[in-house]
Amino acid sequence: MLQHEPTPDDILEAYERIKNQIHRTPLLTSESLNKMFGCELYFKCENFQKVGAFKFRGTSNAVLSLDRSELEKGVITHSSGNHAAALSLAARMKNIPAYIVMPNTAPEIKKRAVAGYGAKITFSEPTVKSREEAAQKIVAETGATFIHPYDNYSIIAGQATCAKEIFEEVSDLDYLISPVGGAGLVSGTCLSAYHFSNHTKVIGAEPKGADDAFRSLRDKTIYPSINPKTICDGLLTQLCDKTHLILTRYLHEIITVDDEVTINAMKIIWERMKIIVEPSSAITLGVVMNNPDKFRNKKIGLILSGGNVDLDKLPWIK
Amino acid sequence: MLQHEPTPDDILEAYERIKNQIHRTPLLTSESLNKMFGCELYFKCENFQKVGAFKFRGTSNAVLSLDRSELEKGVITHSSGNHAAALSLAARMKNIPAYIVMPNTAPEIKKRAVAGYGAKITFSEPTVKSREEAAQKIVAETGATFIHPYDNYSIIAGQATCAKEIFEEVSDLDYLISPVGGAGLVSGTCLSAYHFSNHTKVIGAEPKGADDAFRSLRDKTIYPSINPKTICDGLLTQLCDKTHLILTRYLHEIITVDDEVTINAMKIIWERMKIIVEPSSAITLGVVMNNPDKFRNKKIGLILSGGNVDLDKLPWIK
Repeated sequence: MLQHEPTPDDILEAYERIKNQIHRTPLLTSESLNKMFGCELYFKCENFQKVGAFKFRGTSNAVLSLDRSELEKGVITHSSGNHAAALSLAARMKNIPAYIVMPNTAPEIKKRAVAGYGAKITFSEPTVKSREEAAQKIVAETGATFIHPYDNYSIIAGQATCAKEIFEEVSDLDYLISPVGGAGLVSGTCLSAYHFSNHTKVIGAEPKGADDAFRSLRDKTIYPSINPKTICDGLLTQLCDKTHLILTRYLHEIITVDDEVTINAMKIIWERMKIIVEPSSAITLGVVMNNPDKFRNKKIGLILSGGNVDLDKLPWIK
Repeated sequence: MLQHEPTPDDILEAYERIKNQIHRTPLLTSESLNKMFGCELYFKCENFQKVGAFKFRGTSNAVLSLDRSELEKGVITHSSGNHAAALSLAARMKNIPAYIVMPNTAPEIKKRAVAGYGAKITFSEPTVKSREEAAQKIVAETGATFIHPYDNYSIIAGQATCAKEIFEEVSDLDYLISPVGGAGLVSGTCLSAYHFSNHTKVIGAEPKGADDAFRSLRDKTIYPSINPKTICDGLLTQLCDKTHLILTRYLHEIITVDDEVTINAMKIIWERMKIIVEPSSAITLGVVMNNPDKFRNKKIGLILSGGNVDLDKLPWIK
């Protein structure tokens, strides 16, 4: 597992390691959206990635970075979302055990998804204390390696391969917009932009109702994410030391977006591009919609981070 | 305008004519769907075509086949759906007038879409008589060329380019499944399969509640489509002489599908593939779901004909 901020070589090595098991996702354009917003938009479709989210890049790199004795003991994480599914699949593809600690309150659909990838699920109470105790107990019993969703440089190097692919296709973006949660994706994006582009500025897109990263960078501290209120269920987590430092060094700025704008952006993407993205992805277009002057006539990449949506509950249907 | 059943050369010429203004749509695969249904599926994504449907292929070919004096007078059709939008866009790209007769009962969203492409809309009563009279009046006044949505060999040759693209990528499909409405798309598909594949059998997918084509082929006549009851709003029309004859000659069979299965297929495509398709497209997967033995271990192409869905009213949300 990587112990330092990923270098260009670390990112390139991560890409070589994972490229045969990830999808190289398409970079889509839409004439009608370009016309609508007066700029040139490039959508990186990680909603088409395996497990429906960019997370599979990071977990693939983490699992494939383990040595033989680590592999035998398997991997563990606590999560109920895309990270758990992504780690489970990466473990199954390497034929090693994955232990997932999930709150017993997690939606049935997420339990089934993770179980479907063959992971061993342990249910905890829905508190940080309970899930951490459950995870520690499993680590003690099995020796499995704990894989944090973003507080892990191998994960960050894996997520960086997404922007690397973008720059291979379009090298002269003015801006590249990535969602900000715990900031594994946007940290990797910043590193790839710094190392592999000429002058592309990375912007983080964060929900107004969960703007801990915005405040954390402004005040040079790490605020916890307390009672975040947003429809962007992938962006509820807070920064860690690693991501805080990378964003402080390399991120151009964070722009916050109201959920109302994000929902509108999501519906526009569904209607015009005929692709399914989750709110945590659509927020990147929300940044553009909120700042037409800033982005007019610019070349802008947007990372559509995932497409896992409960199709029975769409935010624009009351 | 073509006056005979399209030959291989007619289809190739149509493709040359339109290829720079249509999208070459992707042929997608999904490991999880292949596993789920025990066969190899290739999805031709005409939902990503301009105006969100295959219709733009046919209308592009029709408009670009007009001579100079015809072009000057413009084109006309009566339709409230994808054909109207597709004809309007093809006309606008050639900078000629498009006259669209729409029932005054058409949904606001469809009126806006067609108006957005710059067409001149005339509203009629929602009866065949009223719309045909309105169209004839405009033809008499303007000399515009009437472009029927499928009773037109240039349209059929344009739709045939879709399967042509499929065979360029996968030449050894066992089956190619296309939705059946008025049968412009499936007729073109049959012709391309006959001329450009070795042995691919074309299957038409038709809603059980609108099975006039199934009965028409069985009984060697053309039944009108009377009170069709189906969620597949693109498949309500009936065969014409041209399409009836082509299907009689070249179609392997028609398989009918209950709306319940189609809705299920649609949701599976949205969930697993993260793309938006309309019911009239998803019915092709419904054919596979209903006949697992027939399709097991086969290589099957499915034409996802369009992605124009009212996102405020999804069929699985009551």
